[in-house]
Amino acid sequence: MKLIRFGEIGKEKPGVIINNEYFDVSDLVTDYNEDFFSEGGIEKLEKEISGANLKKIDSNVRLGSPLARPSKLLCVGLNYSDHAKETNAPIPTEPILFFKSTTAIVGPNDDLVIPKGSKKTDWEVELAIIIGKKASYVEEADAYDYIAGYCLHNDYSEREFQLERNGQWAKGKGCDTFAPLGPYIATKDEIADVHQLNLWLTVNGKKLQDGTTANLIFNVPFIVHYISQFMTLLPGDVITTGTPAGVGLGQKPEPWYLKPGDVVELGIDGLGTSKQTAKAYTV
Amino acid sequence: MKLIRFGEIGKEKPGVIINNEYFDVSDLVTDYNEDFFSEGGIEKLEKEISGANLKKIDSNVRLGSPLARPSKLLCVGLNYSDHAKETNAPIPTEPILFFKSTTAIVGPNDDLVIPKGSKKTDWEVELAIIIGKKASYVEEADAYDYIAGYCLHNDYSEREFQLERNGQWAKGKGCDTFAPLGPYIATKDEIADVHQLNLWLTVNGKKLQDGTTANLIFNVPFIVHYISQFMTLLPGDVITTGTPAGVGLGQKPEPWYLKPGDVVELGIDGLGTSKQTAKAYTV
Repeated sequence: MKLIRFGEIGKEKPGVIINNEYFDVSDLVTDYNEDFFSEGGIEKLEKEISGANLKKIDSNVRLGSPLARPSKLLCVGLNYSDHAKETNAPIPTEPILFFKSTTAIVGPNDDLVIPKGSKKTDWEVELAIIIGKKASYVEEADAYDYIAGYCLHNDYSEREFQLERNGQWAKGKGCDTFAPLGPYIATKDEIADVHQLNLWLTVNGKKLQDGTTANLIFNVPFIVHYISQFMTLLPGDVITTGTPAGVGLGQKPEPWYLKPGDVVELGIDGLGTSKQTAKAYTV
Repeated sequence: MKLIRFGEIGKEKPGVIINNEYFDVSDLVTDYNEDFFSEGGIEKLEKEISGANLKKIDSNVRLGSPLARPSKLLCVGLNYSDHAKETNAPIPTEPILFFKSTTAIVGPNDDLVIPKGSKKTDWEVELAIIIGKKASYVEEADAYDYIAGYCLHNDYSEREFQLERNGQWAKGKGCDTFAPLGPYIATKDEIADVHQLNLWLTVNGKKLQDGTTANLIFNVPFIVHYISQFMTLLPGDVITTGTPAGVGLGQKPEPWYLKPGDVVELGIDGLGTSKQTAKAYTV
Protein backbone atom coordinates (compact mmCIF):
# COMPACT_ATOMS: atom_id res chain seq x y z
CA MET A 1 0.00 0.00 0.00
CA LYS A 2 1.11 3.57 -0.65
CA LEU A 3 0.08 6.13 1.96
CA ILE A 4 -0.16 9.86 1.22
CA ARG A 5 -1.37 12.94 3.03
CA PHE A 6 -2.88 15.65 0.87
CA GLY A 7 -4.32 19.14 1.13
CA GLU A 8 -3.32 22.50 2.57
CA ILE A 9 -0.35 22.83 4.92
CA GLY A 10 -1.42 21.89 8.43
CA LYS A 11 -4.77 20.52 7.22
CA GLU A 12 -3.60 17.41 5.41
CA LYS A 13 -5.91 14.41 5.12
CA PRO A 14 -4.88 10.78 4.74
CA GLY A 15 -5.11 9.09 1.36
CA VAL A 16 -3.76 6.15 -0.62
CA ILE A 17 -2.37 5.67 -4.10
CA ILE A 18 -3.80 2.75 -6.08
CA ASN A 19 -2.62 2.20 -9.66
CA ASN A 20 -1.27 5.75 -9.80
CA GLU A 21 -4.62 7.22 -8.77
CA TYR A 22 -5.10 9.12 -5.51
CA PHE A 23 -7.94 8.33 -3.12
CA ASP A 24 -9.21 10.00 0.05
CA VAL A 25 -9.40 7.66 3.07
CA SER A 26 -10.18 10.28 5.69
CA ASP A 27 -13.49 8.53 6.42
CA LEU A 28 -11.51 5.45 7.45
CA VAL A 29 -8.43 6.90 9.14
CA THR A 30 -7.91 9.98 11.37
CA ASP A 31 -4.28 10.47 10.40
CA TYR A 32 -1.09 8.50 9.80
CA ASN A 33 0.22 9.11 13.30
CA GLU A 34 1.50 7.17 16.32
CA ASP A 35 -1.96 5.74 17.08
CA PHE A 36 -2.46 4.61 13.49
CA PHE A 37 0.80 2.67 13.33
CA SER A 38 0.60 1.25 16.86
CA GLU A 39 -2.97 0.02 16.49
CA GLY A 40 -2.43 -2.08 13.37
CA GLY A 41 -3.69 0.74 11.16
CA ILE A 42 -1.98 -0.52 8.03
CA GLU A 43 -3.59 -3.96 8.16
CA LYS A 44 -7.02 -2.50 9.04
CA LEU A 45 -6.85 0.04 6.25
CA GLU A 46 -5.80 -2.59 3.75
CA LYS A 47 -8.90 -4.64 4.58
CA GLU A 48 -11.21 -1.64 4.62
CA ILE A 49 -10.19 -0.26 1.24
CA SER A 50 -10.46 -3.54 -0.62
CA GLY A 51 -13.90 -3.37 -2.13
CA ALA A 52 -14.69 0.05 -0.61
CA ASN A 53 -15.97 2.78 -2.88
CA LEU A 54 -13.18 5.28 -2.36
CA LYS A 55 -13.40 8.95 -3.26
CA LYS A 56 -10.89 9.72 -6.00
CA ILE A 57 -8.96 12.97 -5.70
CA ASP A 58 -7.11 15.12 -8.19
CA SER A 59 -3.53 13.87 -8.43
CA ASN A 60 -2.37 17.48 -8.78
CA VAL A 61 -3.32 18.13 -5.16
CA ARG A 62 -0.55 19.34 -2.85
CA LEU A 63 1.03 16.45 -0.95
CA GLY A 64 2.13 16.90 2.64
CA SER A 65 4.54 14.71 4.53
CA PRO A 66 3.04 11.20 4.31
CA LEU A 67 2.90 10.95 8.07
CA ALA A 68 1.90 13.25 10.92
CA ARG A 69 4.60 14.82 13.08
CA PRO A 70 6.64 11.98 14.60
CA SER A 71 8.21 12.01 18.05
CA LYS A 72 11.62 11.69 16.37
CA LEU A 73 13.29 12.37 13.05
CA LEU A 74 16.56 10.60 13.68
CA CYS A 75 19.37 10.34 11.17
CA VAL A 76 22.37 8.15 10.52
CA GLY A 77 25.35 10.19 9.33
CA LEU A 78 28.06 9.20 6.86
CA ASN A 79 26.49 5.82 6.13
CA TYR A 80 27.83 5.44 2.55
CA SER A 81 31.59 5.11 2.30
CA ASP A 82 31.82 7.22 -0.89
CA HIS A 83 30.08 10.12 0.93
CA ALA A 84 32.34 9.81 3.99
CA LYS A 85 35.32 9.96 1.64
CA GLU A 86 34.12 13.01 -0.29
CA THR A 87 33.65 14.97 2.95
CA ASN A 88 37.08 13.87 4.25
CA ALA A 89 35.46 12.07 7.18
CA PRO A 90 36.66 8.67 8.40
CA ILE A 91 34.46 5.62 7.71
CA PRO A 92 32.37 5.25 10.88
CA THR A 93 33.09 2.21 13.04
CA GLU A 94 29.55 2.39 14.39
CA PRO A 95 26.57 4.50 13.24
CA ILE A 96 26.67 8.25 13.86
CA LEU A 97 23.27 9.41 15.09
CA PHE A 98 21.78 12.89 15.14
CA PHE A 99 18.35 14.47 15.28
CA LYS A 100 16.67 16.74 12.80
CA SER A 101 14.01 19.01 14.27
CA THR A 102 10.54 17.72 13.39
CA THR A 103 9.58 21.32 12.57
CA ALA A 104 11.77 20.87 9.47
CA ILE A 105 9.32 18.37 7.96
CA VAL A 106 7.43 19.49 4.84
CA GLY A 107 5.71 17.94 1.86
CA PRO A 108 7.76 16.34 -0.93
CA ASN A 109 7.27 19.16 -3.41
CA ASP A 110 7.14 22.17 -1.10
CA ASP A 111 9.68 24.95 -1.58
CA LEU A 112 13.03 24.74 0.14
CA VAL A 113 13.56 27.94 2.11
CA ILE A 114 17.23 28.93 2.29
CA PRO A 115 17.67 30.22 5.86
CA LYS A 116 18.62 33.85 6.57
CA GLY A 117 22.35 34.28 6.22
CA SER A 118 22.90 30.83 4.72
CA LYS A 119 25.68 30.42 2.18
CA LYS A 120 25.99 26.63 2.28
CA THR A 121 22.58 24.98 1.92
CA ASP A 122 23.23 21.46 0.66
CA TRP A 123 21.19 18.41 -0.46
CA GLU A 124 21.22 14.73 0.58
CA VAL A 125 18.92 12.11 -0.96
CA GLU A 126 18.12 9.44 1.64
CA LEU A 127 16.06 6.35 2.30
CA ALA A 128 13.84 6.86 5.37
CA ILE A 129 12.50 4.05 7.57
CA ILE A 130 9.09 4.44 9.21
CA ILE A 131 8.80 2.62 12.54
CA GLY A 132 5.63 0.58 13.00
CA LYS A 133 5.91 -0.69 16.56
CA LYS A 134 7.43 0.51 19.84
CA ALA A 135 11.05 -0.63 19.71
CA SER A 136 13.45 -0.96 22.64
CA TYR A 137 16.48 -3.29 22.71
CA VAL A 138 15.42 -5.00 19.49
CA GLU A 139 17.50 -7.89 18.12
CA GLU A 140 18.81 -7.38 14.59
CA ALA A 141 17.07 -10.60 13.47
CA ASP A 142 13.70 -9.17 14.59
CA ALA A 143 14.19 -5.64 13.30
CA TYR A 144 11.90 -5.89 10.25
CA ASP A 145 8.98 -6.62 12.59
CA TYR A 146 9.33 -3.05 13.85
CA ILE A 147 9.30 -1.40 10.42
CA ALA A 148 6.05 -0.14 8.87
CA GLY A 149 7.50 1.05 5.59
CA TYR A 150 9.85 3.39 3.78
CA CYS A 151 9.84 6.78 2.12
CA LEU A 152 12.02 9.20 0.22
CA HIS A 153 13.75 11.99 2.19
CA ASN A 154 15.97 14.93 1.37
CA ASP A 155 18.19 15.67 4.38
CA TYR A 156 18.92 19.33 3.61
CA SER A 157 21.93 20.53 5.56
CA GLU A 158 23.43 23.98 6.07
CA ARG A 159 27.13 23.16 6.18
CA GLU A 160 28.31 26.35 7.85
CA PHE A 161 25.65 26.04 10.58
CA GLN A 162 26.41 22.32 10.91
CA LEU A 163 30.19 22.32 10.89
CA GLU A 164 31.51 25.82 11.54
CA ARG A 165 29.17 27.22 14.20
CA ASN A 166 30.52 25.46 17.28
CA GLY A 167 29.73 21.93 18.19
CA GLN A 168 26.94 19.53 17.37
CA TRP A 169 25.20 19.23 13.97
CA ALA A 170 21.73 20.28 15.21
CA LYS A 171 22.00 23.87 13.95
CA GLY A 172 22.54 22.90 10.33
CA LYS A 173 20.08 20.03 10.11
CA GLY A 174 16.83 21.29 11.61
CA CYS A 175 16.06 24.49 9.70
CA ASP A 176 12.46 24.92 8.54
CA THR A 177 11.71 23.05 5.26
CA PHE A 178 14.94 21.01 5.58
CA ALA A 179 13.10 17.67 5.73
CA PRO A 180 10.85 16.97 2.74
CA LEU A 181 9.34 13.50 3.21
CA GLY A 182 7.47 11.49 0.59
CA PRO A 183 5.67 11.55 -1.87
CA TYR A 184 4.34 8.44 -0.07
CA ILE A 185 5.10 5.77 2.46
CA ALA A 186 5.48 2.42 0.74
CA THR A 187 4.50 -0.22 3.23
CA LYS A 188 7.21 -2.80 3.86
CA ASP A 189 5.58 -5.46 1.64
CA GLU A 190 5.93 -3.16 -1.41
CA ILE A 191 9.73 -3.21 -1.30
CA ALA A 192 11.17 -6.58 -2.30
CA ASP A 193 14.73 -5.80 -1.18
CA VAL A 194 15.40 -2.54 0.63
CA HIS A 195 19.13 -3.05 0.04
CA GLN A 196 18.81 -3.06 -3.75
CA LEU A 197 17.32 0.37 -4.42
CA ASN A 198 18.87 3.00 -6.63
CA LEU A 199 18.70 6.54 -5.30
CA TRP A 200 19.56 9.68 -7.20
CA LEU A 201 19.37 13.47 -7.05
CA THR A 202 19.66 16.22 -9.64
CA VAL A 203 20.10 19.98 -9.32
CA ASN A 204 18.71 21.92 -12.28
CA GLY A 205 18.58 18.67 -14.22
CA LYS A 206 22.19 17.67 -13.67
CA LYS A 207 22.64 14.33 -11.91
CA LEU A 208 24.83 14.79 -8.85
CA GLN A 209 23.95 11.82 -6.67
CA ASP A 210 23.57 8.33 -8.11
CA GLY A 211 23.88 5.56 -5.57
CA THR A 212 22.37 2.35 -4.36
CA THR A 213 21.28 1.19 -0.92
CA ALA A 214 23.47 -1.87 -1.59
CA ASN A 215 26.31 0.41 -0.45
CA LEU A 216 24.92 1.26 2.99
CA ILE A 217 27.69 0.75 5.55
CA PHE A 218 25.13 -0.14 8.25
CA ASN A 219 22.05 -1.78 6.81
CA VAL A 220 18.39 -1.26 7.70
CA PRO A 221 17.87 -3.99 10.34
CA PHE A 222 21.18 -3.18 11.99
CA ILE A 223 20.25 0.51 12.24
CA VAL A 224 16.91 -0.23 13.92
CA HIS A 225 18.59 -2.68 16.31
CA TYR A 226 21.41 -0.23 17.03
CA ILE A 227 19.28 2.83 17.75
CA SER A 228 16.96 0.81 19.97
CA GLN A 229 19.93 0.17 22.31
CA PHE A 230 20.02 3.90 23.13
CA MET A 231 16.38 4.99 23.13
CA THR A 232 12.86 3.74 22.54
CA LEU A 233 11.52 4.22 19.03
CA LEU A 234 7.80 4.96 18.80
CA PRO A 235 5.35 3.99 16.05
CA GLY A 236 5.55 6.63 13.33
CA ASP A 237 9.12 7.64 14.18
CA VAL A 238 11.34 8.30 11.17
CA ILE A 239 14.94 7.15 10.75
CA THR A 240 16.87 8.38 7.74
CA THR A 241 19.76 6.26 6.70
CA GLY A 242 22.43 8.51 5.20
CA THR A 243 23.31 9.75 1.74
CA PRO A 244 25.63 8.54 -1.04
CA ALA A 245 28.34 10.72 -2.60
CA GLY A 246 27.56 13.81 -4.66
CA VAL A 247 26.50 16.46 -2.14
CA GLY A 248 27.52 20.10 -2.57
CA LEU A 249 30.19 19.82 0.13
CA GLY A 250 31.86 17.06 -1.90
CA GLN A 251 31.92 18.81 -5.31
CA LYS A 252 35.31 19.19 -7.04
CA PRO A 253 37.30 21.30 -7.51
CA GLU A 254 35.24 23.43 -5.10
CA PRO A 255 32.12 22.78 -3.01
CA TRP A 256 29.05 24.69 -4.20
CA TYR A 257 25.60 25.17 -2.73
CA LEU A 258 21.99 26.04 -3.55
CA LYS A 259 20.78 29.50 -4.52
CA PRO A 260 17.24 30.80 -4.95
CA GLY A 261 15.62 29.41 -8.08
CA ASP A 262 17.57 26.15 -8.11
CA VAL A 263 15.43 23.06 -8.63
CA VAL A 264 16.28 19.87 -6.77
CA GLU A 265 14.75 16.56 -7.91
CA LEU A 266 15.33 13.20 -6.30
CA GLY A 267 14.03 9.67 -6.23
CA ILE A 268 14.43 6.13 -4.97
CA ASP A 269 13.28 2.94 -6.76
CA GLY A 270 9.80 2.10 -5.55
CA LEU A 271 9.50 5.21 -3.38
CA GLY A 272 8.69 7.81 -6.03
CA THR A 273 10.24 11.18 -6.71
CA SER A 274 10.09 14.64 -5.18
CA LYS A 275 11.02 18.12 -6.31
CA GLN A 276 11.88 21.23 -4.33
CA THR A 277 12.52 24.73 -5.62
CA ALA A 278 14.93 26.77 -3.53
CA LYS A 279 13.80 30.23 -2.48
CA ALA A 280 15.21 32.96 -0.29
CA TYR A 281 13.76 33.50 3.19
CA THR A 282 11.13 36.22 3.31
CA VAL A 283 8.96 37.18 6.26
CA MET B 1 0.71 29.97 38.46
CA LYS B 2 2.26 26.55 38.96
CA LEU B 3 1.21 23.87 36.47
CA ILE B 4 1.43 20.16 37.21
CA ARG B 5 0.34 16.95 35.53
CA PHE B 6 -0.61 14.11 37.84
CA GLY B 7 -1.71 10.49 37.73
CA GLU B 8 -0.54 7.26 36.15
CA ILE B 9 2.16 7.21 33.47
CA GLY B 10 0.59 7.99 30.12
CA LYS B 11 -2.72 9.05 31.70
CA GLU B 12 -1.67 12.26 33.41
CA LYS B 13 -4.23 15.01 33.98
CA PRO B 14 -3.53 18.73 34.25
CA GLY B 15 -3.54 20.41 37.63
CA VAL B 16 -2.28 23.48 39.46
CA ILE B 17 -0.56 24.13 42.76
CA ILE B 18 -2.04 26.91 44.91
CA ASN B 19 -0.50 27.59 48.34
CA ASN B 20 1.21 24.20 48.31
CA GLU B 21 -2.07 22.40 47.67
CA TYR B 22 -2.73 20.44 44.47
CA PHE B 23 -5.90 20.91 42.41
CA ASP B 24 -7.33 19.08 39.40
CA VAL B 25 -8.13 21.38 36.46
CA SER B 26 -8.93 18.65 33.93
CA ASP B 27 -12.47 20.06 33.60
CA LEU B 28 -10.96 23.32 32.35
CA VAL B 29 -7.95 22.19 30.31
CA THR B 30 -7.39 19.16 28.04
CA ASP B 31 -3.64 19.06 28.57
CA TYR B 32 -0.62 21.34 28.80
CA ASN B 33 0.32 20.86 25.17
CA GLU B 34 1.04 22.87 22.04
CA ASP B 35 -2.61 23.95 21.69
CA PHE B 36 -2.81 25.05 25.32
CA PHE B 37 0.23 27.30 25.11
CA SER B 38 -0.52 28.65 21.63
CA GLU B 39 -4.12 29.54 22.41
CA GLY B 40 -3.43 31.69 25.46
CA GLY B 41 -4.15 28.79 27.78
CA ILE B 42 -2.21 30.23 30.71
CA GLU B 43 -4.19 33.48 30.77
CA LYS B 44 -7.51 31.68 30.28
CA LEU B 45 -6.77 29.18 33.04
CA GLU B 46 -5.71 31.94 35.41
CA LYS B 47 -9.08 33.66 34.95
CA GLU B 48 -11.05 30.43 35.17
CA ILE B 49 -9.50 29.18 38.40
CA SER B 50 -9.89 32.43 40.31
CA GLY B 51 -13.10 31.92 42.21
CA ALA B 52 -13.73 28.44 40.76
CA ASN B 53 -14.44 25.60 43.14
CA LEU B 54 -11.48 23.40 42.28
CA LYS B 55 -11.21 19.73 43.20
CA LYS B 56 -8.34 19.23 45.62
CA ILE B 57 -6.13 16.21 45.08
CA ASP B 58 -3.78 14.28 47.34
CA SER B 59 -0.36 15.89 47.17
CA ASN B 60 1.20 12.42 47.36
CA VAL B 61 -0.10 11.66 43.87
CA ARG B 62 2.49 10.73 41.24
CA LEU B 63 3.54 13.74 39.19
CA GLY B 64 4.25 13.38 35.49
CA SER B 65 6.19 15.79 33.35
CA PRO B 66 4.38 19.12 33.77
CA LEU B 67 3.77 19.32 30.05
CA ALA B 68 2.68 16.93 27.32
CA ARG B 69 5.25 15.62 24.85
CA PRO B 70 6.80 18.64 23.12
CA SER B 71 7.96 18.76 19.51
CA LYS B 72 11.48 19.44 20.79
CA LEU B 73 13.60 18.96 23.88
CA LEU B 74 16.56 21.05 22.88
CA CYS B 75 19.61 21.61 25.04
CA VAL B 76 22.43 24.10 25.35
CA GLY B 77 25.71 22.39 26.18
CA LEU B 78 28.59 23.66 28.31
CA ASN B 79 26.78 26.86 29.26
CA TYR B 80 28.47 27.40 32.64
CA SER B 81 32.18 28.11 32.46
CA ASP B 82 32.99 26.04 35.58
CA HIS B 83 31.35 22.98 33.97
CA ALA B 84 33.17 23.51 30.67
CA LYS B 85 36.42 23.66 32.64
CA GLU B 86 35.78 20.51 34.69
CA THR B 87 35.12 18.50 31.51
CA ASN B 88 38.24 19.93 29.82
CA ALA B 89 36.10 21.56 27.11
CA PRO B 90 36.83 25.04 25.78
CA ILE B 91 34.45 27.86 26.75
CA PRO B 92 31.96 27.99 23.84
CA THR B 93 32.11 31.06 21.62
CA GLU B 94 28.46 30.52 20.70
CA PRO B 95 25.88 28.13 22.17
CA ILE B 96 26.29 24.40 21.53
CA LEU B 97 22.90 22.89 20.70
CA PHE B 98 21.80 19.29 20.81
CA PHE B 99 18.55 17.36 21.06
CA LYS B 100 17.41 14.94 23.70
CA SER B 101 14.84 12.42 22.55
CA THR B 102 11.38 13.35 23.85
CA THR B 103 10.89 9.67 24.74
CA ALA B 104 13.38 10.36 27.56
CA ILE B 105 10.88 12.60 29.36
CA VAL B 106 9.50 11.32 32.68
CA GLY B 107 7.98 12.71 35.85
CA PRO B 108 10.18 14.52 38.39
CA ASN B 109 10.27 11.69 40.90
CA ASP B 110 10.18 8.67 38.60
CA ASP B 111 13.02 6.17 38.76
CA LEU B 112 16.11 6.71 36.66
CA VAL B 113 16.73 3.56 34.63
CA ILE B 114 20.43 2.97 34.01
CA PRO B 115 20.57 1.70 30.41
CA LYS B 116 21.79 -1.82 29.58
CA GLY B 117 25.57 -1.87 29.46
CA SER B 118 25.94 1.62 30.91
CA LYS B 119 28.93 2.33 33.11
CA LYS B 120 28.84 6.14 33.00
CA THR B 121 25.34 7.43 33.77
CA ASP B 122 25.78 11.01 34.98
CA TRP B 123 23.58 13.84 36.33
CA GLU B 124 23.12 17.51 35.32
CA VAL B 125 20.76 19.89 37.15
CA GLU B 126 19.40 22.43 34.66
CA LEU B 127 16.97 25.30 34.26
CA ALA B 128 14.47 24.54 31.46
CA ILE B 129 12.62 27.18 29.46
CA ILE B 130 9.08 26.43 28.23
CA ILE B 131 8.22 28.18 24.96
CA GLY B 132 4.82 29.90 24.89
CA LYS B 133 4.56 31.17 21.32
CA LYS B 134 5.79 30.11 17.88
CA ALA B 135 9.26 31.62 17.59
CA SER B 136 11.26 32.17 14.41
CA TYR B 137 14.00 34.80 13.99
CA VAL B 138 13.16 36.40 17.34
CA GLU B 139 15.08 39.49 18.46
CA GLU B 140 16.84 39.15 21.80
CA ALA B 141 14.92 42.16 23.13
CA ASP B 142 11.60 40.41 22.41
CA ALA B 143 12.61 36.95 23.62
CA TYR B 144 10.68 36.99 26.91
CA ASP B 145 7.44 37.39 24.93
CA TYR B 146 8.01 33.87 23.63
CA ILE B 147 8.55 32.26 27.03
CA ALA B 148 5.65 30.68 28.94
CA GLY B 149 7.59 29.66 32.02
CA TYR B 150 10.36 27.60 33.52
CA CYS B 151 10.90 24.24 35.16
CA LEU B 152 13.52 22.06 36.78
CA HIS B 153 15.28 19.47 34.63
CA ASN B 154 17.87 16.74 35.17
CA ASP B 155 19.79 16.23 31.91
CA TYR B 156 20.96 12.66 32.57
CA SER B 157 23.83 11.76 30.26
CA GLU B 158 25.60 8.48 29.56
CA ARG B 159 29.16 9.67 29.02
CA GLU B 160 30.46 6.61 27.20
CA PHE B 161 27.47 6.63 24.81
CA GLN B 162 27.81 10.42 24.41
CA LEU B 163 31.55 10.78 24.00
CA GLU B 164 33.13 7.43 23.16
CA ARG B 165 30.65 5.77 20.78
CA ASN B 166 31.44 7.64 17.58
CA GLY B 167 30.20 11.08 16.80
CA GLN B 168 27.31 13.20 17.96
CA TRP B 169 25.95 13.34 21.53
CA ALA B 170 22.48 11.93 20.69
CA LYS B 171 23.26 8.40 21.90
CA GLY B 172 24.12 9.43 25.44
CA LYS B 173 21.41 12.04 25.96
CA GLY B 174 18.16 10.46 24.85
CA CYS B 175 17.95 7.20 26.81
CA ASP B 176 14.58 6.42 28.38
CA THR B 177 14.04 8.21 31.75
CA PHE B 178 16.98 10.58 31.06
CA ALA B 179 14.81 13.71 31.15
CA PRO B 180 12.85 14.19 34.38
CA LEU B 181 10.96 17.49 34.12
CA GLY B 182 9.20 19.32 36.93
CA PRO B 183 7.73 19.09 39.60
CA TYR B 184 5.87 22.02 37.98
CA ILE B 185 6.06 24.75 35.38
CA ALA B 186 6.30 28.14 37.07
CA THR B 187 4.75 30.65 34.71
CA LYS B 188 7.11 33.48 33.80
CA ASP B 189 5.47 35.98 36.20
CA GLU B 190 6.41 33.76 39.18
CA ILE B 191 10.15 34.19 38.63
CA ALA B 192 11.36 37.70 39.46
CA ASP B 193 14.83 37.29 37.93
CA VAL B 194 15.61 34.08 36.05
CA HIS B 195 19.32 34.97 36.21
CA GLN B 196 19.44 34.97 40.00
CA LEU B 197 18.40 31.43 40.83
CA ASN B 198 20.46 28.97 42.82
CA LEU B 199 20.49 25.42 41.50
CA TRP B 200 21.89 22.37 43.29
CA LEU B 201 22.05 18.62 43.14
CA THR B 202 22.92 15.91 45.65
CA VAL B 203 23.71 12.22 45.27
CA ASN B 204 22.88 10.15 48.36
CA GLY B 205 22.63 13.39 50.30
CA LYS B 206 26.04 14.76 49.33
CA LYS B 207 25.93 18.12 47.58
CA LEU B 208 27.79 17.86 44.27
CA GLN B 209 26.37 20.71 42.21
CA ASP B 210 25.80 24.15 43.72
CA GLY B 211 25.55 26.91 41.17
CA THR B 212 23.59 29.96 40.16
CA THR B 213 21.99 30.99 36.89
CA ALA B 214 23.91 34.24 37.30
CA ASN B 215 26.82 32.27 35.82
CA LEU B 216 25.13 31.27 32.56
CA ILE B 217 27.51 32.04 29.70
CA PHE B 218 24.57 32.63 27.33
CA ASN B 219 21.52 33.96 29.12
CA VAL B 220 17.87 33.07 28.67
CA PRO B 221 16.75 35.71 26.13
CA PHE B 222 19.91 35.22 24.08
CA ILE B 223 19.35 31.46 23.93
CA VAL B 224 15.78 31.85 22.66
CA HIS B 225 16.91 34.43 20.11
CA TYR B 226 19.85 32.29 19.04
CA ILE B 227 17.98 29.01 18.56
CA SER B 228 15.23 30.78 16.63
CA GLN B 229 17.81 31.70 13.97
CA PHE B 230 18.19 28.00 13.14
CA MET B 231 14.71 26.54 13.55
CA THR B 232 11.16 27.42 14.54
CA LEU B 233 10.31 26.84 18.18
CA LEU B 234 6.74 25.72 18.85
CA PRO B 235 4.54 26.45 21.87
CA GLY B 236 5.33 23.87 24.54
CA ASP B 237 8.85 23.22 23.28
CA VAL B 238 11.48 22.82 26.00
CA ILE B 239 14.96 24.34 26.01
CA THR B 240 17.34 23.31 28.75
CA THR B 241 20.11 25.74 29.47
CA GLY B 242 23.14 23.78 30.63
CA THR B 243 24.54 22.65 33.95
CA PRO B 244 27.04 24.10 36.46
CA ALA B 245 30.12 22.22 37.69
CA GLY B 246 29.89 19.10 39.80
CA VAL B 247 28.83 16.32 37.41
CA GLY B 248 30.25 12.81 37.68
CA LEU B 249 32.54 13.33 34.70
CA GLY B 250 34.14 16.27 36.53
CA GLN B 251 34.78 14.56 39.89
CA LYS B 252 38.38 14.54 41.20
CA PRO B 253 40.61 12.65 41.44
CA GLU B 254 38.51 10.28 39.28
CA PRO B 255 35.11 10.60 37.58
CA TRP B 256 32.43 8.39 39.10
CA TYR B 257 28.89 7.57 38.04
CA LEU B 258 25.52 6.36 39.27
CA LYS B 259 24.78 2.80 40.35
CA PRO B 260 21.48 1.13 41.19
CA GLY B 261 20.11 2.39 44.51
CA ASP B 262 21.70 5.83 44.32
CA VAL B 263 19.32 8.69 45.11
CA VAL B 264 19.62 11.94 43.17
CA GLU B 265 17.90 15.07 44.50
CA LEU B 266 17.95 18.46 42.85
CA GLY B 267 16.29 21.84 42.96
CA ILE B 268 16.19 25.39 41.67
CA ASP B 269 14.94 28.45 43.60
CA GLY B 270 11.26 28.93 42.81
CA LEU B 271 11.04 25.80 40.68
CA GLY B 272 10.82 23.15 43.40
CA THR B 273 12.77 19.96 43.87
CA SER B 274 12.79 16.49 42.35
CA LYS B 275 14.20 13.13 43.34
CA GLN B 276 15.15 10.12 41.26
CA THR B 277 16.28 6.70 42.44
CA ALA B 278 18.63 4.89 40.07
CA LYS B 279 17.74 1.35 39.15
CA ALA B 280 19.15 -1.24 36.77
CA TYR B 281 17.37 -1.95 33.50
CA THR B 282 15.05 -4.93 33.67
CA VAL B 283 12.67 -6.14 30.96
